[in-house]
Amino acid sequence: MIQGKASVSFDTGVWIKESAAVVGKKEGEGPLGNEFDEVCMDELFGQKTWEDAEGELLRRCAQLAMDKAAVTPEKVRFAFAGDLLNQTTASSFGLKSFQIPQFGLYGACSTMGESMVLGAMTVGAGYAEQVLCAASSHFASAEKTFRNPLDYGSQRPYSATWTVTGAGAVILSGKSGLARITGVTVGKVVDYGIKDPMNMGAAMAPAAADTIYQALTDFNLEPESFDRIITGDLGYIGQTALIDLLRKKNVDISNQHMDCGIEMFDQKTQDTHAGGSGCGCAASTFCSLVMKKLKSGEWKRVLFCPTGALMSQTTYHEEQTIPGICHGVMVESAAGVFIG
Amino acid sequence: MIQGKASVSFDTGVWIKESAAVVGKKEGEGPLGNEFDEVCMDELFGQKTWEDAEGELLRRCAQLAMDKAAVTPEKVRFAFAGDLLNQTTASSFGLKSFQIPQFGLYGACSTMGESMVLGAMTVGAGYAEQVLCAASSHFASAEKTFRNPLDYGSQRPYSATWTVTGAGAVILSGKSGLARITGVTVGKVVDYGIKDPMNMGAAMAPAAADTIYQALTDFNLEPESFDRIITGDLGYIGQTALIDLLRKKNVDISNQHMDCGIEMFDQKTQDTHAGGSGCGCAASTFCSLVMKKLKSGEWKRVLFCPTGALMSQTTYHEEQTIPGICHGVMVESAAGVFIG
Repeated sequence: MIQGKASVSFDTGVWIKESAAVVGKKEGEGPLGNEFDEVCMDELFGQKTWEDAEGELLRRCAQLAMDKAAVTPEKVRFAFAGDLLNQTTASSFGLKSFQIPQFGLYGACSTMGESMVLGAMTVGAGYAEQVLCAASSHFASAEKTFRNPLDYGSQRPYSATWTVTGAGAVILSGKSGLARITGVTVGKVVDYGIKDPMNMGAAMAPAAADTIYQALTDFNLEPESFDRIITGDLGYIGQTALIDLLRKKNVDISNQHMDCGIEMFDQKTQDTHAGGSGCGCAASTFCSLVMKKLKSGEWKRVLFCPTGALMSQTTYHEEQTIPGICHGVMVESAAGVFIG
Repeated sequence: MIQGKASVSFDTGVWIKESAAVVGKKEGEGPLGNEFDEVCMDELFGQKTWEDAEGELLRRCAQLAMDKAAVTPEKVRFAFAGDLLNQTTASSFGLKSFQIPQFGLYGACSTMGESMVLGAMTVGAGYAEQVLCAASSHFASAEKTFRNPLDYGSQRPYSATWTVTGAGAVILSGKSGLARITGVTVGKVVDYGIKDPMNMGAAMAPAAADTIYQALTDFNLEPESFDRIITGDLGYIGQTALIDLLRKKNVDISNQHMDCGIEMFDQKTQDTHAGGSGCGCAASTFCSLVMKKLKSGEWKRVLFCPTGALMSQTTYHEEQTIPGICHGVMVESAAGVFIG
């Protein structure tokens, strides 16, 4: 059902049947280490290139989500997936062995949100009984794509984030599950003119503010209606900017806000500066920690709103700005006791 | 409504309210020159970089589609768009001024199909009254992204296609229009192990065969049920491969098949070797010639199935295969007299 300017709510149930999260070694050593389904100690995931490593990471994660949900690829009608690589090759190559009809997505680090929005709309409309939504990122393939080859050993400023090696996947179902997607808010491309790719948090915060404000307006809810309002990878600097931007609109999310990039690493011991980033940061945190809290009922309702920075190496070299985008997914515990 | 293995049919009307096609000079000089809404003689579209040129091309095309449909961006609920550039920056930057909630897509040259599939599903479900579906490519930005900078003057083999500078956009509506989308078929990633990026037609033909076969099966139709079965940019070599592959499955589409890449250029005088290619090839041909034939009722029903090659420069350098994907959209003349 159409809600407000940019949102859709689901009268029929759209369920998260199961989720899975697979990460790399460094992520496994972080504060969320015990939450993930699999921590792979081999950063190459048994492959020869970083690109194949990311594809295998995503494949394993999707396989695990299907296994946990007790479904085979044949029973999954559509896959919605994306990643950060040029021409999103990690998801095209990574998922091809499943032979699931597939939609390739690019929403930068908001991709897990985009895939869940489209997946939920598809299941909610009755176009599919079950779909797979997934996203990934890999530290080494992302550094190569967006910054410098690792071999250069370039120094990173304190405003830079650390791309998470991780993937998350959910199986959405029209029948039952651990949590329910009750609404989605589709983000606009928001451009505040930031040009520093080493300060992605500041570039993406305006998009997060826009989508969160839109979701609260469209669904007529307050920040207090949520146990957590969860961004993907704003990091420490972006978090401050987001809270400030929303305060200017008389919305205070400081008590509810959580950022997956901040949760992912221990800032003191893991040398990740402004926090974690990448599609895999939000995806793997949502599919582990957040889903566990919703499953247990400790959290009743969250707004999951990962943000993406819509730049490329080419646009950076051509001195373009870095526009952001953020897609929102409202998820409620299957217990169904809303706090709103 | 779910149809067969990979398709959805729409009981409620999903209409193509209007379409627009904008192309570059070379495309304007080709056989379809008189069909397009705008032929821009400045390949830079008034911009300073090829990337910005493509963004402006897409923006103009989307604006034109909205103008023709007499809708403002505020009345378009969602945009579904993509392009070939790294991180799909042409669509992110090109459409951002409209401030329409946007889904970024990557389906390589199948993107116009992907955007129409998702747009039709969204309108068909009642999630939006009107959506924008669009895709673009630009010869110069694509050559730079996938092959070599133009300045190198590299020679091209006869199996290579020529990336079309062009964009197509449709406004889909739940109410009325020039033609009706009656079904969609979502493609799988199909990999026959082809590795030559100068022979994309051969790499993509298996995906086209797979989706066309799936669509005919899911909708229980014959090739004769269609006036045209339209691929995007297989070119001359890919066309032969496609027809052969389907003949092996006892399906003969030789009388119905049309390829936008073959239609776009005059092979004898325009030096484009195997034909046109790029997201913009299928998009601009569909949004001009095909829509005109449907509008006039000369064609009653077509299966539009653009194909994409899911490679990147990185996967090529790493000696990967080139998997393909193809999404199918069944479109019927608003006259409603089916020939099936």
